[in-house]
Amino acid sequence: MIEIERALSMILERARPRAAERLGLDQSLGRVLAEEVISDIDSPPYDKALMDGYAVVASDLRGGRDELIVVDEVAAGDMPCEPLQSGMATRIMTGAPVPRGADAIVVDECCQLDQAGGIKTVRIDDRGVRPSQNILGRGRSVRRGEPVFQVGRRLSAIDAGLLAEVGRTQVLIHPAPRVAVLPTGSELVPACDVPGPGQIRNSNGPMLCALVSSAGGQPVDLGIARDTESELAHQMNLGLQEDILILSGGVSSGDFDLVPRVLRDLGVEQVFHGVRLKPGRPLWFGVLSHAKGSRLVFGLPGNPVSGLVCFELFVRPAITALAALPQKSRPTIAARLSVPFRHTGDRPTYFPVGLVSDGDRTLARLLDWKGSADLRTLACADGLAQFPAGRSEYASNETVQVMLLERGLFGN
Amino acid sequence: MIEIERALSMILERARPRAAERLGLDQSLGRVLAEEVISDIDSPPYDKALMDGYAVVASDLRGGRDELIVVDEVAAGDMPCEPLQSGMATRIMTGAPVPRGADAIVVDECCQLDQAGGIKTVRIDDRGVRPSQNILGRGRSVRRGEPVFQVGRRLSAIDAGLLAEVGRTQVLIHPAPRVAVLPTGSELVPACDVPGPGQIRNSNGPMLCALVSSAGGQPVDLGIARDTESELAHQMNLGLQEDILILSGGVSSGDFDLVPRVLRDLGVEQVFHGVRLKPGRPLWFGVLSHAKGSRLVFGLPGNPVSGLVCFELFVRPAITALAALPQKSRPTIAARLSVPFRHTGDRPTYFPVGLVSDGDRTLARLLDWKGSADLRTLACADGLAQFPAGRSEYASNETVQVMLLERGLFGN
Repeated sequence: MIEIERALSMILERARPRAAERLGLDQSLGRVLAEEVISDIDSPPYDKALMDGYAVVASDLRGGRDELIVVDEVAAGDMPCEPLQSGMATRIMTGAPVPRGADAIVVDECCQLDQAGGIKTVRIDDRGVRPSQNILGRGRSVRRGEPVFQVGRRLSAIDAGLLAEVGRTQVLIHPAPRVAVLPTGSELVPACDVPGPGQIRNSNGPMLCALVSSAGGQPVDLGIARDTESELAHQMNLGLQEDILILSGGVSSGDFDLVPRVLRDLGVEQVFHGVRLKPGRPLWFGVLSHAKGSRLVFGLPGNPVSGLVCFELFVRPAITALAALPQKSRPTIAARLSVPFRHTGDRPTYFPVGLVSDGDRTLARLLDWKGSADLRTLACADGLAQFPAGRSEYASNETVQVMLLERGLFGN
Repeated sequence: MIEIERALSMILERARPRAAERLGLDQSLGRVLAEEVISDIDSPPYDKALMDGYAVVASDLRGGRDELIVVDEVAAGDMPCEPLQSGMATRIMTGAPVPRGADAIVVDECCQLDQAGGIKTVRIDDRGVRPSQNILGRGRSVRRGEPVFQVGRRLSAIDAGLLAEVGRTQVLIHPAPRVAVLPTGSELVPACDVPGPGQIRNSNGPMLCALVSSAGGQPVDLGIARDTESELAHQMNLGLQEDILILSGGVSSGDFDLVPRVLRDLGVEQVFHGVRLKPGRPLWFGVLSHAKGSRLVFGLPGNPVSGLVCFELFVRPAITALAALPQKSRPTIAARLSVPFRHTGDRPTYFPVGLVSDGDRTLARLLDWKGSADLRTLACADGLAQFPAGRSEYASNETVQVMLLERGLFGN
């Protein structure tokens, strides 16, 4: 058995960012850029009107007012025909190119059009006309050849807009790690079946797939493997095509626990088996060297709460590392125990709690736990209270750290 | 022009949860349940061993130790053949059904198997055997016919496991609202094209699609509509098949702004046009009554920062409401201005800022803004500083509220 911190560092040493791929913007949100992005154009590509109004020569309006001859009209998408000279104005719409010679846009509110006598004129009354007002000059936002994003940037929705602006509809990013999920056990049947004698439904598969999604991975549901060498080997081989393979069950020390043996036969090298942690002690971790990059293999205990604890402490950080994202610990809050707690004290222990607000304090209510196979109680948990090893008794009202679960984050 | 709060309440009055659909668990994570879920079985479906060891009659071990005859062996997935009587034990694996007559599991560490003389016996040394130890009794977690989830629950990854346990691989939920995105403007070309004279790339489309995803909606990219009545009508008609249609551009008061007119011709009823807000004043909002439920239509200003502000203040809450999720305001922090700020003060104003940590304070650095069309500066923003109407001058070091953008949330 090794310590939690040692186990995590052994995993992260082996969790390298997934090979970059060129993907569309719709698949790049929240992902990490693996290339520098250079603009292929000046942006805006022309001097652009930022308001509806009239393009003018600013010096014509030094006195604050004037009447100008309207020589042209430019909508967005048009090109101005006439260069502008002193005494002239061009009707212009937001987004349209400013005509040559013009250096300011006066907004509609300061202009009055006069079409009497067949000649269009505009009477302008604007005391504060400054050169370049309401114009975004060509290349003011980005210059051609200029880098707009560096390697390592996590792409936001706004970034998607800027990438489109500089012509990048495909970008080299570290994509979502693909994570195969394979619960094992001859007692398991698919959730859509009615269990026969001695059978139970596969609930770990759907839970782990959903946890993978919530961690930013792409789950690959491999169904169920029964406890036979050939079936395990066949299904595991499929799972080893993906970046990460999560097995559930078959890693404790029982006679029928074939999982570690079959993994070794498939060439997966064991890194550790057993962590000083409760629940979750039987955790198995290994690596397969592969032409397309290493595959990480996690053998989680089959009990759902053990599996959940191992997922949050070890698998989620691995998915984060493969996505090239910075590690972030799960949000943790301080709360007071509503009742005393006692454990053996030989291993760091995680215990499901509900959180209740009590004035300016938060109370952690230990849940009526019926053994680690009890998913129903776990579904009511807001977090996992952490009890370090070395102390076995905690008094009511003592402060403990609680790692928030997804439900605690939803706040419902 | 109406106030921000009034605009939001007019939108939310019309934003009803999207009709529920029966979907797979893989599409239900984070979604809101629209039915009560009842268990179709007792769970576990049998008295289940929680550890590897021996099933025994607890009263046999009152003295703390005994030697028992091993009569059977049960792996997970098997059914026990022999009911257990006093003096007997059954080898049992985690997850397997406990034989009739047995009422406790003694873990392997306390047992020693003896096969000498052809009869298998097990010597047990366990001072603390209690009835039901290491057994999860049939139905202890969930009883058949019992409700496990109520209407309105937001489904977590753990919930997906519990739904599988009670046989629900399809659940009635409020699915992701479908949100059509349609930038308008004859100057626009797709981002993959090189803009010709007077043309600019469509950057609002990719940005808005990514914002929709980040808000939990399902974006439907409709490309671009040029400023002609027939093209607008055709594309808008497609968009009106979805729950929400977001238009970008064409809603200010210019001569060529056909958008509100074409919308009215299509039967979309205007709810408001114009909000006391900077940037974002031209926001248009309307509703189409439709056999399959109302369609909400947002006409956002074409400038990206105006569009972003309107999205965060008005469209994101609408998506949240259609998903039947509780409204949550965007995270907001207090920060001090690093330089003085001045605005006209007639409208509540949002200004992009970068955030810098300075000891125990956070400084808001006003970004060198080149007009609201400048997506590049916006991509550097961590948040939008909020300046209420009615005051036009802010001193350096004054505290302002900053609404965090996605990038500020990523922390990169």
